[in-house]
Amino acid sequence: MKRSRFLLNTLKETPKEAVVASHILLARAGMIKQVASGIYTYMPLATRVLHKIETIIREELDAAGCQELLMPVVQPAELWVESGRWQEYGKELLRLKDRKDNDYCLGPTHEEIITDVVRREVRSYKDLPLNLYQIQTKFRDEIRPRFGLMRGREFLMKDAYSFDVDTEAATASYWDMHRAYSRIFSRCKLEFRPVEADSGAIGGDYNHEFQVLARSGEDLVLSCGNCDYAANAERCEIKEAPAYEPAGAVADPRVVDTPGKKTIEEVAGFLGVAPEACVKTLLYQADGRLIAAMIPGHRELNEVALKRAAGAVSLEIAVDPALFANRGLHPGFLGPIDFPEDIPLYVDAAVMAAPETVAGANQPEKHLVGVVPAAHVKPTATATLRQAVEGDGCPRCGKGRFKAFRGIEVGHIFRLGTKYSESMNAVYLDQNGKERPIVMGCYGIGVGRTMAAAIEQNHDEDGIIWPVSIAPFHVMLLNLDVKDEQVLGAVDGLYAGLRAKGVETLVDDTPQRPGFKFKDADLIGLPVQATVGARSLKNGVVEIKIRRSGEKRAVPLGAAVDEIVAELQKLGWGSPLE
Amino acid sequence: MKRSRFLLNTLKETPKEAVVASHILLARAGMIKQVASGIYTYMPLATRVLHKIETIIREELDAAGCQELLMPVVQPAELWVESGRWQEYGKELLRLKDRKDNDYCLGPTHEEIITDVVRREVRSYKDLPLNLYQIQTKFRDEIRPRFGLMRGREFLMKDAYSFDVDTEAATASYWDMHRAYSRIFSRCKLEFRPVEADSGAIGGDYNHEFQVLARSGEDLVLSCGNCDYAANAERCEIKEAPAYEPAGAVADPRVVDTPGKKTIEEVAGFLGVAPEACVKTLLYQADGRLIAAMIPGHRELNEVALKRAAGAVSLEIAVDPALFANRGLHPGFLGPIDFPEDIPLYVDAAVMAAPETVAGANQPEKHLVGVVPAAHVKPTATATLRQAVEGDGCPRCGKGRFKAFRGIEVGHIFRLGTKYSESMNAVYLDQNGKERPIVMGCYGIGVGRTMAAAIEQNHDEDGIIWPVSIAPFHVMLLNLDVKDEQVLGAVDGLYAGLRAKGVETLVDDTPQRPGFKFKDADLIGLPVQATVGARSLKNGVVEIKIRRSGEKRAVPLGAAVDEIVAELQKLGWGSPLE
Repeated sequence: MKRSRFLLNTLKETPKEAVVASHILLARAGMIKQVASGIYTYMPLATRVLHKIETIIREELDAAGCQELLMPVVQPAELWVESGRWQEYGKELLRLKDRKDNDYCLGPTHEEIITDVVRREVRSYKDLPLNLYQIQTKFRDEIRPRFGLMRGREFLMKDAYSFDVDTEAATASYWDMHRAYSRIFSRCKLEFRPVEADSGAIGGDYNHEFQVLARSGEDLVLSCGNCDYAANAERCEIKEAPAYEPAGAVADPRVVDTPGKKTIEEVAGFLGVAPEACVKTLLYQADGRLIAAMIPGHRELNEVALKRAAGAVSLEIAVDPALFANRGLHPGFLGPIDFPEDIPLYVDAAVMAAPETVAGANQPEKHLVGVVPAAHVKPTATATLRQAVEGDGCPRCGKGRFKAFRGIEVGHIFRLGTKYSESMNAVYLDQNGKERPIVMGCYGIGVGRTMAAAIEQNHDEDGIIWPVSIAPFHVMLLNLDVKDEQVLGAVDGLYAGLRAKGVETLVDDTPQRPGFKFKDADLIGLPVQATVGARSLKNGVVEIKIRRSGEKRAVPLGAAVDEIVAELQKLGWGSPLE
Repeated sequence: MKRSRFLLNTLKETPKEAVVASHILLARAGMIKQVASGIYTYMPLATRVLHKIETIIREELDAAGCQELLMPVVQPAELWVESGRWQEYGKELLRLKDRKDNDYCLGPTHEEIITDVVRREVRSYKDLPLNLYQIQTKFRDEIRPRFGLMRGREFLMKDAYSFDVDTEAATASYWDMHRAYSRIFSRCKLEFRPVEADSGAIGGDYNHEFQVLARSGEDLVLSCGNCDYAANAERCEIKEAPAYEPAGAVADPRVVDTPGKKTIEEVAGFLGVAPEACVKTLLYQADGRLIAAMIPGHRELNEVALKRAAGAVSLEIAVDPALFANRGLHPGFLGPIDFPEDIPLYVDAAVMAAPETVAGANQPEKHLVGVVPAAHVKPTATATLRQAVEGDGCPRCGKGRFKAFRGIEVGHIFRLGTKYSESMNAVYLDQNGKERPIVMGCYGIGVGRTMAAAIEQNHDEDGIIWPVSIAPFHVMLLNLDVKDEQVLGAVDGLYAGLRAKGVETLVDDTPQRPGFKFKDADLIGLPVQATVGARSLKNGVVEIKIRRSGEKRAVPLGAAVDEIVAELQKLGWGSPLE
């Protein structure tokens, strides 16, 4: 493909709304154009990448026994009313009416449609298992679309749904998809981790996110250095020490004045102790009622864990001073002693393991020292409420310590159980002729987000560094002297030679200066660059540059095709996992 | 693929709403499932066909120098306001609001989005030409969705848009697409005709529909038996004889009583003349005002031609008796003499060519005989207003006569000119640095409709007969004795042998009776069927059946793979135009 005939205009400037690398580089490389907030046109270069990712997804899912179908974007309300989600789903569900005033929504996901399809098709256990997928445009009306393709409103998603006779079979389907996802992201040449994650509103007993490692990732992920446990910080368990057991009688805590010292750092500094020797007590509104949580002074609260402990759907930290004043509480001086008994108090397990600690006194400008949580605190419940951090102990192997990294969720697999099959009456007859609900799973991959995550993980200050398997083209062939017949002949020959080997080449045949072309080639980030100019051609050579390593060398014109192919192969092109 | 693992349930009964063959057979072969009126899920078998059609489209458009991109389904109102279509477009445009109360629509077509993309990218004549396409889900809120995929609301469409410096270049792009479309539908193995068509609201000086020939087609198409002129009846010109020139003085028409004789047949019968010796005068409301049209008594009016002659956007036949009574007119007895002078009278050219005719007298229960239109009628304008029929003369070559056929519009190509580029200010700088509007074309293919049209053209009373190039699988391999180990071994061997040759095979390994399997195989309609049963296997043979011809023969097991491949090749598989 000649660049002069290819619609690809790079930008020098970064669009002002772009703050993450993938958004900046997708925009600067001319790959996406914003149409409205969170809605983009994928330009030809991006469309080529999407197709490559889609092809990898299709090949791996087909190999795993999945079947592709195509469900509609516009979905009738009735099915959503049946599942209960018409009421439950918030404003992210874009609702609309047709000319006859019937209610519809734009599909943010397709559980309702697929469950309706399957309940009409499946009669007996002989019709199961089934695993059906589609690659289709989805819409979620995000309140704050941001980060380009990372959190858009309209996006391209692969969604798959499995249907099994029982939990055991559904578990097998789940792990089949876990393996297929691992192959898909391996073939995309991404460094990723499947991690245990919170299931949110979708439910289910466990689920995995596929996290692409990237400094800019929205998610914090912990991974054991010894075993294969890895989890989203929201969901991460921590190896807990047992609760402290005092040897004998425990003295009462003593009240000390801590005038104007509200934060843990201020209190610890004032009292001459370490922050980890203090505890903090936090007031929240959970589904509208007040609850409190105690965690070690130097740690962050894991709100998802607190929600789970309290059985709450919504959780907000209490900030309104009236909430405190109404109950005689003093912000900054909350503590477990003389705390209102009707406010449930959830205590982190590490607090209960501490022999002695400093806490707020529930009196203005005062703290308690000598608090022995095991003796003095009466928790409503104890749980791991602090967010895991690097260095925490792994609860699975009991030996390893966590390493922390940041990740971008590109896939998520769920065990749905019978949530949808029960509400929508998707049943089958078992071997005894008894009606049973089908056991489901669902499995998503953000296609556009995978492209963006690949850029987050593979770029430098000059631009994108495409993994060879999803690169829009394999080679950028730069013609430095477009009016020189000999150079033109050499470029045409190279192009034809590469094409014959199945190498996809973009020829920069524009009349730009060499410096501009080099910068552009780095920005666009094809795996290998080959440069032909009048000067080097006099010496019979072509310059090859590997985008990732920056390594450059001159190769004889006649050997260039083979050298380029060899370099692409070194980058993984054509390998079994490509 | 084993049928026992493939989601494919055929139906014995025809869904009651299905009246055309493609809808009946798509439903009975389990290929589509209705989700809501005009909204379908494409099941795995249908999805395979869609992918095959998409691949052919992509290959041919890429070869023609087009570039693929992907535009959004949800489009902001602003761009539609700019083009003027937000106001113009009727209720087929499904409008919606997002959570912030901003206006959007679901894209029925993408002229606005692509014009916006291109005006931001193109600076000078050097950036042109461009031809950009996408395959994307579209939505048109049809008032009466019907005929399954033929007139749905949500549908899959390939839309392409060309951008050129001037009309000459745009014309070249237009004919490039004409050729690409011909290749696409040839590769789909459809019998089709590119025909001249009305441009409707999109405008442009000429355009072509690609019509797939099928008895059930919604469109009437005329095609010259001598030259290559072919046109939609709405748009078809007819070779006209010159207006009659009376040799001398012409007598006045005579009034005759025709009591109760209103229709042409009644009048002609009563007067003992042929219907073609009569004319009929029809009253219409064109954009709300009254107009009249005169055509030969035995012909139908072409409403599109009358609209064009009258420069009208809307046209409705006058039925309200008050419309006649208010002007002293008598339904059934309208005629050209003493007709209200302020009602424009459009007269068909064939009427003006007639030496003498019978017409209504504009008096109740009376007609005029001896009307010489050239002498007695004063038309506002003369044009071809009657709809062309088989046997009419071709205006292009002047020699041939029309043949009539019915067709299904699967593609439509338009010259848009500067309609969108002027309203949306999509301009470029020419070689003299002067700003000029880009000249556009647009080109659509209904992907789902092409699948449906293929069925309309290729089916019999037993089911579908897939053209080999778009068949969901090439071969149906029927195992008649699924519990017989030898049969199983032979089937597995055949399957592996076919797979090695690149033949896509669906194995019917279900425990159904042979009769059921044969019926199902015919209904699903894969090009070749191969049957293995215990009885035939004892004789070492496999039965092969060609779905289209019904031809059957037994071939030795060892030769079956080669025989099947040879039959597929005879059907066009692997040929250059496949």
